[in-house]
Amino acid sequence: MQTPWEYRFAHRTKHMRSSVIRELLKLTEQPDIISFAGGLPAPEVFPLEKFQQACNAVLSQQGGLALQYGATEGFTPLRDMIARHTTRYGIEIMTQNVQITSGSQQALDLIGRLFINRGDYIVVESPTYMGALQAWNAYGAQYISVPSDENGMIVDELETALRVGPKFIYVLPNFQNPSGTTLSLERRKKLVEIADKYGVPIVEDDPYGQLRYEGEHIPAVVTLDSEFRGPNGGHYSGNVIYLSTFSKLLAPGLRLAWVIAPPEVIRKMVMTKQGADLHTATFNQMVAYEVAKGGFLDEHVKLIRATYKERRDVMLEMMDELFPPEVRYTRPQGGMFLWGIMPAGMDAAEVFKVAVQKKVAFVPGAAFHANGGGDNTMRLNFSFSSPETIREGVTRLSLTLKEMLAQNGK
Amino acid sequence: MQTPWEYRFAHRTKHMRSSVIRELLKLTEQPDIISFAGGLPAPEVFPLEKFQQACNAVLSQQGGLALQYGATEGFTPLRDMIARHTTRYGIEIMTQNVQITSGSQQALDLIGRLFINRGDYIVVESPTYMGALQAWNAYGAQYISVPSDENGMIVDELETALRVGPKFIYVLPNFQNPSGTTLSLERRKKLVEIADKYGVPIVEDDPYGQLRYEGEHIPAVVTLDSEFRGPNGGHYSGNVIYLSTFSKLLAPGLRLAWVIAPPEVIRKMVMTKQGADLHTATFNQMVAYEVAKGGFLDEHVKLIRATYKERRDVMLEMMDELFPPEVRYTRPQGGMFLWGIMPAGMDAAEVFKVAVQKKVAFVPGAAFHANGGGDNTMRLNFSFSSPETIREGVTRLSLTLKEMLAQNGK
Repeated sequence: MQTPWEYRFAHRTKHMRSSVIRELLKLTEQPDIISFAGGLPAPEVFPLEKFQQACNAVLSQQGGLALQYGATEGFTPLRDMIARHTTRYGIEIMTQNVQITSGSQQALDLIGRLFINRGDYIVVESPTYMGALQAWNAYGAQYISVPSDENGMIVDELETALRVGPKFIYVLPNFQNPSGTTLSLERRKKLVEIADKYGVPIVEDDPYGQLRYEGEHIPAVVTLDSEFRGPNGGHYSGNVIYLSTFSKLLAPGLRLAWVIAPPEVIRKMVMTKQGADLHTATFNQMVAYEVAKGGFLDEHVKLIRATYKERRDVMLEMMDELFPPEVRYTRPQGGMFLWGIMPAGMDAAEVFKVAVQKKVAFVPGAAFHANGGGDNTMRLNFSFSSPETIREGVTRLSLTLKEMLAQNGK
Repeated sequence: MQTPWEYRFAHRTKHMRSSVIRELLKLTEQPDIISFAGGLPAPEVFPLEKFQQACNAVLSQQGGLALQYGATEGFTPLRDMIARHTTRYGIEIMTQNVQITSGSQQALDLIGRLFINRGDYIVVESPTYMGALQAWNAYGAQYISVPSDENGMIVDELETALRVGPKFIYVLPNFQNPSGTTLSLERRKKLVEIADKYGVPIVEDDPYGQLRYEGEHIPAVVTLDSEFRGPNGGHYSGNVIYLSTFSKLLAPGLRLAWVIAPPEVIRKMVMTKQGADLHTATFNQMVAYEVAKGGFLDEHVKLIRATYKERRDVMLEMMDELFPPEVRYTRPQGGMFLWGIMPAGMDAAEVFKVAVQKKVAFVPGAAFHANGGGDNTMRLNFSFSSPETIREGVTRLSLTLKEMLAQNGK
């Protein structure tokens, strides 16, 4: 007889759904659709030649090591380099503060596995990154949403949430995915203080920190937390778990990211990662180290910034010119996304259907809301498409929006 | 104030321990220790030149694709190739039966996530692979151990275990890790029938199936299950979830493995993998495909077999010559491990301490027992060390064993 698999699956899978984005991406795979839906880096900025040289250097000099099993913590020279690099930002980091992960999505999953008991509350921004929700739903998390404005999470509204007794606060301070907004310095400082006051840890997700196109760099929350606590003998042992990634600086197809956290968190994370995938591919770590060790990425990021800044500018110019005034949107200082807000009552999922007929796509914003709402919002990516394509796409989207607004007004 | 992290960790981490093997490996990292403890392939058999050519071909021809985000299911040409390859063994497999994972450890983790509710029973062999226990402990699994002999799991003793109502049966039929034994054809057939009778799925873990050094190939359990059910329109929809890996055929440092399962299992597994790590590194999948597509691995595996066969033979010859007769051991027809059984009452953990003083190491067998026992057992790896090193290591180990037996006899 046939096995009725549906009844064998664990309880945690019952409400598991495929990522909205991944499903939408399938819809938008037709080549004549202009997609602002994905979160893809531009392949034009992948440093292919440098990468190829690095592969050859690693394989000819240390091939046996590169293709062998490795340590769960990660390739030590790469961890050392990340520690040194982070120290430049005025925070004391040692190698034992660093764990390499198979992309930031794995870091989010390991954090869920490490911290979340079924029913635990997590404080998130509204909107927040849906990949984090997807990871933590599997561990039975519940969410408390704190509203955001153009300066990120409204930290003044955090205190009530902290009195619930959440497991941790999740925040994306730089050019947030999905909203594109940046948490102000003042709010970051207040976040550190208020989290310390209530004794609740912070998970800081920072994939885009290096991708700033204008304005001054704002210190990371982990840096401010380190300053708040004062000197600590060289390593970090504060209240923040910090995530970043090579996906945006080098290439996402490597699945290479890192976590910075107090040593006792890293030690426990190593154990959870052992059970999850033993370790991240040795070869990929060694190649990334080879690419980055001479400071190449510091130079390379300038090309990425120039490319994405132009695309952001083109998208904003076109939107300023063509978008109906009823639709508001953020003006990100960096990153890969901006966020559109249509009048209340409009449904982005309906707009999406019409937009796809007009051969343009985006992500309806509801999926970025942990506790419902946001039906009238949308996420637009500006990193992937060429300026020319962006012009045409915004034109199509403007037509769609005007049409829908007119219908809505009837 | 300092965050008391220990109290923030989730309940599932309370009994989490680092893998015994990984901890032992640290002890045995001194260069003068001969280690039979790890499960490492010999780096001498890594096809470095071919691998380097493949990297260059992928990057020069499809670099943009290789470094970009990819589908959670895996790189389609690689999935197609695995489906075609598996079809050669007389089982109907289509691409939708195949999921690429970040090593077999991730496949074990995803299976746990997909199936195991806290308290669920899993039927395992005694001894069994400790990496599976490590993965499933995080999901709150309990285990029913079925004893094994030189022909693998004693299937006649399975029926009682199945009346408990377990979630699935976990079996490593070929050159089992740790015992080195192989499940006989007769028992495989009986396993398929009895699992079908009770409606309990089978998880078949087969990392070493290609590494047979003598005797006839025995069809995989998934193949026998497919035959048992008869033709099914081209794809597999039976009762077995089958795992295999590129770690032993190509290189473990790539973290590349695959799952073959009914399409409804694969569909759900894709969702769990999205939350776990989005997808396995695109570049690694494309390079593995490039290496394998012309049939290279079919040739390359002959070199691996010849290398490991020699090492196994040397280890067995030396043990036959030097080991005290009170210590029994298996004679594996393939794979990477053999299994030693000392007289009852001997403690392999104690023997280990003395062995390390004599500069030789192995893994005490207790960790491979889901429900205790096996204190007098040990796992020895023969794939990693050169024949010369194996001779010296077995000599040292024999001395250790004789010494401990003499003490024990006092």
